[in-house]
Amino acid sequence: MVSSKGNLVVAQSGGPTVAINSSLVGVVHEALEQDAIAGIYGAQYGIHGVLHENLIDMRRVPADVLMGLRRTPAAALGTIRHKLTGADCERILDVFRAHGIRYFFHIGGNDSMDTTHRVHQMALAVNYELFVIGIPKTVDNDLVGTDHCPGYGSAARFVAMAIRDTGFDTEAMTLSSPVKIMEIMGRNAGWLTASTVLGREGTGSAPHLVYVPGRPVASETLLAEVEACHKRLGRVVIALSEGARDLEGETLGSALQPKEVDAFGHRMKGGAADGVARLITEELGLKTRVDKPNYLQRSFMACASSVDLEEAYLVARAAVRAAMAGESDKMIPLVRASSAPYQCGTGIVALSQVANRERKLPDVYVDRVTGEITPAFVAYAGPLIGEPLVPYARLTAHCVEPA
Amino acid sequence: MVSSKGNLVVAQSGGPTVAINSSLVGVVHEALEQDAIAGIYGAQYGIHGVLHENLIDMRRVPADVLMGLRRTPAAALGTIRHKLTGADCERILDVFRAHGIRYFFHIGGNDSMDTTHRVHQMALAVNYELFVIGIPKTVDNDLVGTDHCPGYGSAARFVAMAIRDTGFDTEAMTLSSPVKIMEIMGRNAGWLTASTVLGREGTGSAPHLVYVPGRPVASETLLAEVEACHKRLGRVVIALSEGARDLEGETLGSALQPKEVDAFGHRMKGGAADGVARLITEELGLKTRVDKPNYLQRSFMACASSVDLEEAYLVARAAVRAAMAGESDKMIPLVRASSAPYQCGTGIVALSQVANRERKLPDVYVDRVTGEITPAFVAYAGPLIGEPLVPYARLTAHCVEPA
Repeated sequence: MVSSKGNLVVAQSGGPTVAINSSLVGVVHEALEQDAIAGIYGAQYGIHGVLHENLIDMRRVPADVLMGLRRTPAAALGTIRHKLTGADCERILDVFRAHGIRYFFHIGGNDSMDTTHRVHQMALAVNYELFVIGIPKTVDNDLVGTDHCPGYGSAARFVAMAIRDTGFDTEAMTLSSPVKIMEIMGRNAGWLTASTVLGREGTGSAPHLVYVPGRPVASETLLAEVEACHKRLGRVVIALSEGARDLEGETLGSALQPKEVDAFGHRMKGGAADGVARLITEELGLKTRVDKPNYLQRSFMACASSVDLEEAYLVARAAVRAAMAGESDKMIPLVRASSAPYQCGTGIVALSQVANRERKLPDVYVDRVTGEITPAFVAYAGPLIGEPLVPYARLTAHCVEPA
Repeated sequence: MVSSKGNLVVAQSGGPTVAINSSLVGVVHEALEQDAIAGIYGAQYGIHGVLHENLIDMRRVPADVLMGLRRTPAAALGTIRHKLTGADCERILDVFRAHGIRYFFHIGGNDSMDTTHRVHQMALAVNYELFVIGIPKTVDNDLVGTDHCPGYGSAARFVAMAIRDTGFDTEAMTLSSPVKIMEIMGRNAGWLTASTVLGREGTGSAPHLVYVPGRPVASETLLAEVEACHKRLGRVVIALSEGARDLEGETLGSALQPKEVDAFGHRMKGGAADGVARLITEELGLKTRVDKPNYLQRSFMACASSVDLEEAYLVARAAVRAAMAGESDKMIPLVRASSAPYQCGTGIVALSQVANRERKLPDVYVDRVTGEITPAFVAYAGPLIGEPLVPYARLTAHCVEPA
């Protein structure tokens, strides 16, 4: 157990999610119950707020505002992407000393876990008593050491709902514009793109093709797959990772994209979706439409997963309790006990095993030959999006022409 | 009143919405109660289904499927954009004769109302007894003769929610990427883009700038407005119509877009958002992110407006009753009795007054100098998105640094 009373700092880091405020509130709620914790401070804009001593007194935040934050997207404290320098580490410790900070909670992804780990090491080196715990957060779901990441389940729910709805839209427009591409977040991680299959309602429903970064394909392969699907169904809805690549490691579809520079001499950068849309239009003559929900994937509160929000809160409370028990240099992972029925708790893992590592979509979840996302993935990710989607109605089964 | 028993055809036309199936079900439900109506047929893919005799027997559709369709997005019958030829009109009448069709209901926008009007004229010319009624539908809200259009309220609710959420996301990332652009549907109509202001929560909240096609601005004006907002708030969230234009009538921001052609010699076509993002990045040095929810705006069922779904159903039932009363060549508009409290009924208007006309966002709803969307617009559009958005929580008011 910890010996002395001290102050706490919590920071939010990296890309916002709809669940990251639930983790913030979890830290505050648990800290309010701990006698060893005096001041509870929130750092504005992540580690930037520590470096610049922009700290908010979270004890002054009314209870109803804290409750409201659990249904408020993005990072209420503000966030930042910032790679620590050596001077930063020293400055952080100076600030911690000045404010009597003994507990540091960092909500973030693998970069943030590296920052957290380094702060711990620095404190250890100068013999400053500090308990630092990482709280996982990323819609990319690519942190190692945890079954899944808070933030991911809600983003997965959004993309599942979005691909289903745009799929119905495409089906209605089959005769006019039969191909739809939805570009999904995840430069290297295929988890979110794969999650679109959770929007499927039986055979023939969207997404029909899924392209994740972990399965590079030749343009010719993609075109053959699109053409085959169009022949079979008359329409094609594609879930395309923004980081989908061809066999040369280039962005999928970029070969046909213009290589010209803009008026300022900068090389143009097109997303995967625009390039693939162009490819399909030019090579197959099929009118192709693109959806890029972009930042809505991580911020659309109306599609939050109840499971995700609750777990984001729980890992944060567990993080504070771990620090109270004397733990440091750790992350609180989610540990799944069972998928059916879904049961999940928290664990503890060394930050050194998490920092700067990426968990790729494993082979058991994606067929590298066909690109099909496997039933094992559905069993894994299905419970994370919360309540099952309400099924839609179809006339198909009743398509009987009059006598 | 109509004299003889006959069959009915209903068709869905143009871009899908989340409410168009409610109108389909409204037609079927009302028709089922009318003794003068024998067969109830749905045309597959709009007027294409009439031309090709692809008709579905809607009497065979189970009641629970009809109920489910009221919560299913896009057009269950399928839809199409098709400009009628003279030969088409003759063919339509031949099909109607062959199937004993006396009632034709066409759910669509201003193009569809033109089609409907022409079918009526053709029937009149050859003395074929036919009752045709148009049922309004468009997310663009640009039909004349009606207070607003079914489909619009739900799309407005989606963009209001989307801009609010991406606004919170932007606010959290103020120090990293302070400018966000959301591209909104509507090539000529500014109604949907204006609706983003319904997502505002007090001063300083998104959207900070709104660009509609009806207020062309010079690139310099846009840049000055963005810069001023950034100085004031540190961030800028822009609702940008896909059809936003500069003073020369060109797509806003297109001056900086490369004029190069692609590998096939085709001129590249960029959306307004990409061009404006490039403009802001290059000229102001502010990192700018883009959201393009595109077809989600018209298909995202989770954001359907309860008011919109109900009205889409009501105009359809009223359309059938109008035909029963002997009306033809008419559209059923929504007629607002009051905004506070919101009360709205149906009316009747000649198709000739609706067909091929566009209702632009009037001056009273947008300040042509500042671009600000007026309180009068909020009073108009607010009730159409259904239940008020649940307010989010903010730490801002509690941003007190520790002593």
